[in-house]
Amino acid sequence: VVRYPPLLTLLTDFGLSTYPGQMKGIIHTILPGAQVVDLTHHVPFADVGCAAHALLCAFGDFPSGTVHVAVVDPGVGSGREVLLLHLAGHTFVAPDNGLLWPLWEMHRVEARAFHLRELQGFCLPPSSTFHGRDIFAPVGAWIARSVPLITLGEPIERPRVALESPKPLVGRSHVEGEVILVDPFGNLVTNIVPRLLPGDISEVSVGEVTIEGIARSYSHWGEGPGVIVNSCGHLEVFLFMGSAAEALGVGVGERVLVRLK
Amino acid sequence: VVRYPPLLTLLTDFGLSTYPGQMKGIIHTILPGAQVVDLTHHVPFADVGCAAHALLCAFGDFPSGTVHVAVVDPGVGSGREVLLLHLAGHTFVAPDNGLLWPLWEMHRVEARAFHLRELQGFCLPPSSTFHGRDIFAPVGAWIARSVPLITLGEPIERPRVALESPKPLVGRSHVEGEVILVDPFGNLVTNIVPRLLPGDISEVSVGEVTIEGIARSYSHWGEGPGVIVNSCGHLEVFLFMGSAAEALGVGVGERVLVRLK
Amino acid sequence: VVRYPPLLTLLTDFGLSTYPGQMKGIIHTILPGAQVVDLTHHVPFADVGCAAHALLCAFGDFPSGTVHVAVVDPGVGSGREVLLLHLAGHTFVAPDNGLLWPLWEMHRVEARAFHLRELQGFCLPPSSTFHGRDIFAPVGAWIARSVPLITLGEPIERPRVALESPKPLVGRSHVEGEVILVDPFGNLVTNIVPRLLPGDISEVSVGEVTIEGIARSYSHWGEGPGVIVNSCGHLEVFLFMGSAAEALGVGVGERVLVRLK
Repeated sequence: VVRYPPLLTLLTDFGLSTYPGQMKGIIHTILPGAQVVDLTHHVPFADVGCAAHALLCAFGDFPSGTVHVAVVDPGVGSGREVLLLHLAGHTFVAPDNGLLWPLWEMHRVEARAFHLRELQGFCLPPSSTFHGRDIFAPVGAWIARSVPLITLGEPIERPRVALESPKPLVGRSHVEGEVILVDPFGNLVTNIVPRLLPGDISEVSVGEVTIEGIARSYSHWGEGPGVIVNSCGHLEVFLFMGSAAEALGVGVGERVLVRLK
Repeated sequence: VVRYPPLLTLLTDFGLSTYPGQMKGIIHTILPGAQVVDLTHHVPFADVGCAAHALLCAFGDFPSGTVHVAVVDPGVGSGREVLLLHLAGHTFVAPDNGLLWPLWEMHRVEARAFHLRELQGFCLPPSSTFHGRDIFAPVGAWIARSVPLITLGEPIERPRVALESPKPLVGRSHVEGEVILVDPFGNLVTNIVPRLLPGDISEVSVGEVTIEGIARSYSHWGEGPGVIVNSCGHLEVFLFMGSAAEALGVGVGERVLVRLK
Repeated sequence: VVRYPPLLTLLTDFGLSTYPGQMKGIIHTILPGAQVVDLTHHVPFADVGCAAHALLCAFGDFPSGTVHVAVVDPGVGSGREVLLLHLAGHTFVAPDNGLLWPLWEMHRVEARAFHLRELQGFCLPPSSTFHGRDIFAPVGAWIARSVPLITLGEPIERPRVALESPKPLVGRSHVEGEVILVDPFGNLVTNIVPRLLPGDISEVSVGEVTIEGIARSYSHWGEGPGVIVNSCGHLEVFLFMGSAAEALGVGVGERVLVRLK
């Protein structure tokens, strides 16, 4: 049997600091030879919803068996629990602050959830400010080293903290959703997933504009704002070679109205 | 025989998003144990020429056998071809949009070029917006897993799309070139490569200034703008501990005149 | 004996350029299978003191045997020496410009220091501008490949260049220190390390404010600026969910007065 090096991902709001590197140092200390991939460290500061969406869209691109460590944790050092989640062959470690809620919600039939119990022997004596290094990275490394979740945590029915995320209102002829994310290119990502709708999309209204039809690609669309199904399966409003957010003057929370055929 | 883990590099304009991480997820899925190095993800958006120059300067620092995946691809989802190139022991995967043209031009005697033929069995069902994940990363991973290029692609004579890049005019006593890049430190990188010139450099004029002689190092030069041969072999105008671009008020496209001894 | 892949870290001010990637290319050429972790490439340009502090705080999170390559080197191409340092099971490679001074000072009893002697056979013919690629990365890779330091360098008593860093004045009832760093979140990191003080902290004055007591966590503190012991053991002034630097209007060099109990 060939054993491949265990794979972990990191998702944080630590930006360009040394913190992501320090987390990797701890992981390599506990698990020499581990492979660690940065999913991103540029989630807007303390934006748990954005982190949750990014993880939901990205984890499926990694092989089964990957351990995902996500730290967007404004409550560091407070009483919030450490959540361990196993679903779809992947394991997740994050604060129980809503970050893993959408994952749990979508996979609740098969998901197993735990609250971290044992720090001793697994974590560093925690500092007041950097549990990414002291708790989340080491726990992720021990999981990747095959310590069973039941050894580390207490089984729970469900995560303690739910994430209130806006669900689209789906009618027979209309869907009302909203912009949930402006990506780094100025694309407006909505909470509407076309493959879950009861019909094909006829037109989309956002801000002052109404757009007819769905683009096959950015470059096919030509001038003016267009609508496309993005790589995560969500409806997205774009401007080819420009920023839709700027051109339309809208941002997160903006109402998006879809008319179905 | 010791087998080292295959090495891939990524070069994109995906910035601080999760996209580079997602590409790595796919690579590790197809090729567990691969090593993936970020060359940069901060090419200016859609700037194919800048990406081409960066790859040309950097690929030689990697070992023979490296697979370089480069995605600066404003035409994602359009009919543009996927180009595979093998030269100097390295393999390159990129859109056929000019990105690999300078590499091909410089190594055309030995370069072998292919257009990707087989998506089925090798790529993900492509989304409309993210072929970096759906096509380029998986193809790079299969190549690094030793799938022959001829299995993946159709041999072609040359890339379809040439990159118009300004060539310096070389005379016996003068060379006329231009600034092709302002690096993150404000250095003005030119298209003039001193070792290809018929004589030694006497002075260099750019914007309002004329600079005599070539600096041995930034710090030896002292005050005012200087000229140096940079780590890629190009002539570069710099300001020690400052930004030449700001001090001289010039940028990409600015004419650079070199007088030879 | 299982041999794990050798581990190196990189710390530079090269930002989002291709330079860190190119250093990794050289490392993988010399040492296939090496693992390379980015500590950070976002030290403020030419800020040797900031790099020194970052390395001092972070290196201990890596396993014994790690090789740390640090390049913040405004004197590139000048006569400055290349310093090799071995202490606490770790090896460091950096310009002898003060960057490794605090490490040496703190571990001087056991530290072994060398000036690089042999470039031939180990380094690339150095360019004028990029010794990170031509000297520091290859030397780090050879060390990680187990070339003894004595083969590479000349033993020296101490680094040539000291780093003048402000030490706090510690009295029986008061400590006077200063802000040495504003982190990416706007936290004011001071040069005061509570565990080295002769008493417990009663209150801290910085700028216009005096803060009583030490916070157990950011989120416990509530409104207004607080004081905490950060993950590196230093006293830090913070504002929960905000920037202390902005709120207090102070920065590096600001005087910090601590009253002891």
